[in-house]
Amino acid sequence: MMIRIFGTGGTFDKEYNMLNGRLYFKDTHMQELLEKGRNLVPVATSILMMIDSLEMTQEQLSLIVSRCEQCEEERIVITHGTDTMDQTARMLAKRITHKTIVLTGAMIPIKFGSSDGLFNLGNALAFAQTLPYGVYIAMNGRAFNWDNVRKNKQTGLFEELR
Amino acid sequence: MMIRIFGTGGTFDKEYNMLNGRLYFKDTHMQELLEKGRNLVPVATSILMMIDSLEMTQEQLSLIVSRCEQCEEERIVITHGTDTMDQTARMLAKRITHKTIVLTGAMIPIKFGSSDGLFNLGNALAFAQTLPYGVYIAMNGRAFNWDNVRKNKQTGLFEELR
Amino acid sequence: MMIRIFGTGGTFDKEYNMLNGRLYFKDTHMQELLEKGRNLVPVATSILMMIDSLEMTQEQLSLIVSRCEQCEEERIVITHGTDTMDQTARMLAKRITHKTIVLTGAMIPIKFGSSDGLFNLGNALAFAQTLPYGVYIAMNGRAFNWDNVRKNKQTGLFEELR
Amino acid sequence: MMIRIFGTGGTFDKEYNMLNGRLYFKDTHMQELLEKGRNLVPVATSILMMIDSLEMTQEQLSLIVSRCEQCEEERIVITHGTDTMDQTARMLAKRITHKTIVLTGAMIPIKFGSSDGLFNLGNALAFAQTLPYGVYIAMNGRAFNWDNVRKNKQTGLFEELR
Repeated sequence: MMIRIFGTGGTFDKEYNMLNGRLYFKDTHMQELLEKGRNLVPVATSILMMIDSLEMTQEQLSLIVSRCEQCEEERIVITHGTDTMDQTARMLAKRITHKTIVLTGAMIPIKFGSSDGLFNLGNALAFAQTLPYGVYIAMNGRAFNWDNVRKNKQTGLFEELR
Repeated sequence: MMIRIFGTGGTFDKEYNMLNGRLYFKDTHMQELLEKGRNLVPVATSILMMIDSLEMTQEQLSLIVSRCEQCEEERIVITHGTDTMDQTARMLAKRITHKTIVLTGAMIPIKFGSSDGLFNLGNALAFAQTLPYGVYIAMNGRAFNWDNVRKNKQTGLFEELR
Repeated sequence: MMIRIFGTGGTFDKEYNMLNGRLYFKDTHMQELLEKGRNLVPVATSILMMIDSLEMTQEQLSLIVSRCEQCEEERIVITHGTDTMDQTARMLAKRITHKTIVLTGAMIPIKFGSSDGLFNLGNALAFAQTLPYGVYIAMNGRAFNWDNVRKNKQTGLFEELR
Repeated sequence: MMIRIFGTGGTFDKEYNMLNGRLYFKDTHMQELLEKGRNLVPVATSILMMIDSLEMTQEQLSLIVSRCEQCEEERIVITHGTDTMDQTARMLAKRITHKTIVLTGAMIPIKFGSSDGLFNLGNALAFAQTLPYGVYIAMNGRAFNWDNVRKNKQTGLFEELR
């Protein structure tokens, strides 16, 4: 069972630019994390964009949806900025019903010692292998249904709507 | 859905003793990892022992089995040394049929920068939430059935028997 | 020989705020680094401010100078943002001639795995113990005299003026 | 001013062998540490051996001494296991009087997140640049004279004899 991984950036992939003191995107850390986790699940990784999810355009959102629709794999993990993860999940759910799609990300960049990214990726890969068709957000160890989740901006934690 | 976590030691929890240059067990790193992963899945953690799995006695193995039988929770994650993980899984499967039990561990201690432990824990927690009753080993991103898995001693990777 | 350490912030002490994705100052990491380095040199640490050196006011600069003048210790290490480290060094050199003062900092925050901060602190503490009276900048493994150093903004490296 | 660095192994360079759970020597981490510290001091590095200092033979000790004698550089840093660091220092001091030689090492391997190695290397490089001719041990932030130092086996800290 091959899993398709789509990278879109987000906090997950931010690095520190020592020349100006800002966080920026250089490369994805996906391969590095998969190796660290000693992953053997067959995966095919495509980096679609490297952006802050707050800056995602309509075109970029459409690209994610169409790539998820068109790829051969039925099981997909998307790494995504946490701020608009729920919006992308909603758009995917409207259009795609016969695949298992799991969005995940990180609250703290991988390059920080204290990042949650490796845990979240392990979590998302397991959910992608086991959950039935649907669109989910894997954060904080849980899999939320796309229509019952939001990021609490005060705590940085994901929670159910009801 | 509360998940029971039983800690038994293994590479996962090994630390470096700077006075004699050996690896040893001091404390579990479970709480630290759950916090790093920003886990919100309700968990109840019990440390049953802190040992190298090659040194597990029959009494200790029995303790693990009876604790898994007796605990209220139906979903259980066990952190365990990788060398005899498959043997403990087999013993559990013989005795317990109405619970989902996921054994996981690490090939590299948590205290090393390159540990696979955080990935494996995220993975195991997701499998414990989603898989049907049964006993599984979550390593290398996959969930193996207890009766179709072994650790390849040459590569340090888990693989199916057939 | 007691060494006085003055903390003023800088990249050294920046942390990641996961709620807004920005870098900020929470606490100093001085004690953590001294413990990591297993330091036994007697030190007395005072945090004077926690700021980006580009935002240092005239009052704050004066505070640093007066604290260096007034403290009992003859040997001082100052952690400081790298952008205006040379300016603070110049001001100190104008006013203080009978002490050994070593400014250091980091190009990458301590909280990133790849930080240079621990190396720089070990370096600065050694220079503070051995160099004659004067004001120095300890970066990139070297001790620069206050009147012959600048930060190259293109490379992020410190270099001599002539 | 070029500094010669001789690597001999020690805890500094130990890695974790995941196949047998033992610590071993694979490669030196010297280059990695110099890059992390963003070092610009000109250095020439030679790895003489990769051993536990408790297993150093008379021949290996002689090799270290003769390489220190014969190298062009007047300033030398040696990374060395901490257990017999003082013995090697004594042998060097008997034979070499016109160079500044600084031995350093680590109590915790570089590959552990909590290693003191990066701090010690920054420290040793500064001492090697500033101290007069002599043989020193740079540990715990201090430079000890070769004839007034021992490792306290109970605490793992270096201390003066008198």
